[in-house]
Amino acid sequence: SRNIRLAVIPGDGIGVEVVTEALKVLEAVGTKVETTTYDLGAKRYHRTGETLPDAVLDELRGYDAILLGAIGDPSVPPGILERDLLLKLRFELDHYVNLRPVKLFPGVETPLGKARPEDIDMIVVREGTESLYAGAGGVLRRGTPHEVATQESLNTAFGVERVVRYAFDKALTRPRKKLTLVHKTNVLTYAGDLWARTFDRVSLEYPDVATDYCHVDAASMFFVTQPERFDVIVTDNLFGDIITDIGAAVAGGIGLAASGNVNPDRTAPSMFEPVHGSAPDIAGQGKADPTATILSVAMLLDHLGLAAEAAKVEQAVADDLVERLTGWAGRTTHEIGDDITARVTG
Amino acid sequence: SRNIRLAVIPGDGIGVEVVTEALKVLEAVGTKVETTTYDLGAKRYHRTGETLPDAVLDELRGYDAILLGAIGDPSVPPGILERDLLLKLRFELDHYVNLRPVKLFPGVETPLGKARPEDIDMIVVREGTESLYAGAGGVLRRGTPHEVATQESLNTAFGVERVVRYAFDKALTRPRKKLTLVHKTNVLTYAGDLWARTFDRVSLEYPDVATDYCHVDAASMFFVTQPERFDVIVTDNLFGDIITDIGAAVAGGIGLAASGNVNPDRTAPSMFEPVHGSAPDIAGQGKADPTATILSVAMLLDHLGLAAEAAKVEQAVADDLVERLTGWAGRTTHEIGDDITARVTG
Ligand SMILES: CC(C)[C@H](C(=O)O)[C@@H](O)C(=O)O
Ligand SMILES: CC(C)[C@H](C(=O)O)[C@@H](O)C(=O)O
Repeated sequence: SRNIRLAVIPGDGIGVEVVTEALKVLEAVGTKVETTTYDLGAKRYHRTGETLPDAVLDELRGYDAILLGAIGDPSVPPGILERDLLLKLRFELDHYVNLRPVKLFPGVETPLGKARPEDIDMIVVREGTESLYAGAGGVLRRGTPHEVATQESLNTAFGVERVVRYAFDKALTRPRKKLTLVHKTNVLTYAGDLWARTFDRVSLEYPDVATDYCHVDAASMFFVTQPERFDVIVTDNLFGDIITDIGAAVAGGIGLAASGNVNPDRTAPSMFEPVHGSAPDIAGQGKADPTATILSVAMLLDHLGLAAEAAKVEQAVADDLVERLTGWAGRTTHEIGDDITARVTG
Repeated sequence: SRNIRLAVIPGDGIGVEVVTEALKVLEAVGTKVETTTYDLGAKRYHRTGETLPDAVLDELRGYDAILLGAIGDPSVPPGILERDLLLKLRFELDHYVNLRPVKLFPGVETPLGKARPEDIDMIVVREGTESLYAGAGGVLRRGTPHEVATQESLNTAFGVERVVRYAFDKALTRPRKKLTLVHKTNVLTYAGDLWARTFDRVSLEYPDVATDYCHVDAASMFFVTQPERFDVIVTDNLFGDIITDIGAAVAGGIGLAASGNVNPDRTAPSMFEPVHGSAPDIAGQGKADPTATILSVAMLLDHLGLAAEAAKVEQAVADDLVERLTGWAGRTTHEIGDDITARVTG
């Protein structure tokens, strides 16, 4: 099979640890991978002041995919690495689909007392390149009693339609074929109107997909009280950020939540990363669960057309998670990585 | 004791039913109340096209407080009653504090398998008059492939500081004295910067209050995984909308979640309402739980300085909720109202 050219950005904190394990699994699955590591993140920022130099961004465009650990460190003022590195990658590489499965694997403990795996099995299609993440806004009279600060959500027909279409296509691949739009159309009237009209118009082309609408506040509640309501969800960038963290919580925690920043048109490489952050409080102690990153690798394989390999990795993770039922607590990051690797090879 | 002059807006759907019970409790508690009912909502909109006429708004300004049931009906295009009635009341009457307790009463079932009442006991101070709720934004080339829709979050030093101060004062009254700012400062840089700077500056005047910061996505997760992290929360209008619905979910459901739209400067009456909506699907069937509205009446009494009466109503609700443990399911709206009324009088 062909060689995957993979750019790896381990990043900060536990990012480095979880990426190491994920790469072990990736190699074990039998794909030929050629990796190049990029030292982007807090250390480089402190050394050179750089977050994402243009030359590096250009180089990254040449890869088949990107694997990212986590970005962020308390030593860097909040927002700098997020905006000038992580979000810059998502925007520059046109990752307009931020794909976030929310799935309760058998054997995994959920804080919801009564939820069973069949109740929590959805995919959130979060828009990745618009809305309040555009960085638009301004400030007048900063630091005075007359300060005014604005923040603007920018939404385009082009941007909304392409992600809505992607979500309808995704819904078609699912047994339930149900797609829910999550927004706040009763308050965000201009943006919500664009989303709702686009959703309704595109839905006419997908008669087999059952559609639904849910305000973001109600959806956030239903993630806790009735997660079985949802199959595929399509939503705006900010709402997607929030509800996928609730999703991670109910599906067993941030240690298991995978994501893909996908450019479906393949005009640039897609980027796969765990939903969790760099967790500086537990970094370097072997306490991080690499599972979210390993599941992100499965998504990466799937994106590159290696469906069998993707399924193998996901199955290995599923088997490992079932074993946790019988009390496999206290394994280190390495040990979990080793165990999943063994299942992939074995 | 003095007469409370109360404007009552039962509104739509179950709003009418729950308000009836709440008024019964209010009278039973021994305060002299003079109520005037306003028929605002879907019916009036259909009859006259009016949502909130200026003359009615002016009249409402003359009351001591407003009790609202719920607004909204599927027969009215989404957003109209919300924006031109409910949000207009909040903005015109300068309800800059939207006070939403999130409290798990003993005896109440929570979807969180392991949470105990002492784990879920917080107060969310949601800003009520700014941010994305300002209605600012616009649209270009509507309905074409070149449509652009914007939505603007407007934030002022004046507006942020007053609600932040209120939250610090509120934190001082609590045993734990902890206040958490919830925002998304790493993405909403202009608005987040104003909030964070204001929070930090005001905190210097409150050395006894322990402060914390949490991004809205992480906070949403912690509501499910570690609700005990929170005591008092102060947050923006939109984030507050979302997290208080998660709060309602974990604290036993929307049937119990009370709220006050408070004007702390008392330049206009404050308005108390359940967090739930008009629930047209169950309207008129006696299925609605009036408890959220009854707890909102307790908040109303407290706001009017009737602390003993407020405590009496809250205790009656608490006692009623404990009884539910022993299987008081299936009571109608009326029966729950009667039972709580009996406890208040008895
Ligand atoms: C770090 C932050 C900018 C990011 C986001 O808001 O998208 C994160 O929360 C995520 O969900 O990947
Ligand atoms: C009905 C809607 C406008 C309202 C809001 O968004 O504030 C509601 O969700 C609430 O929380 O009271």
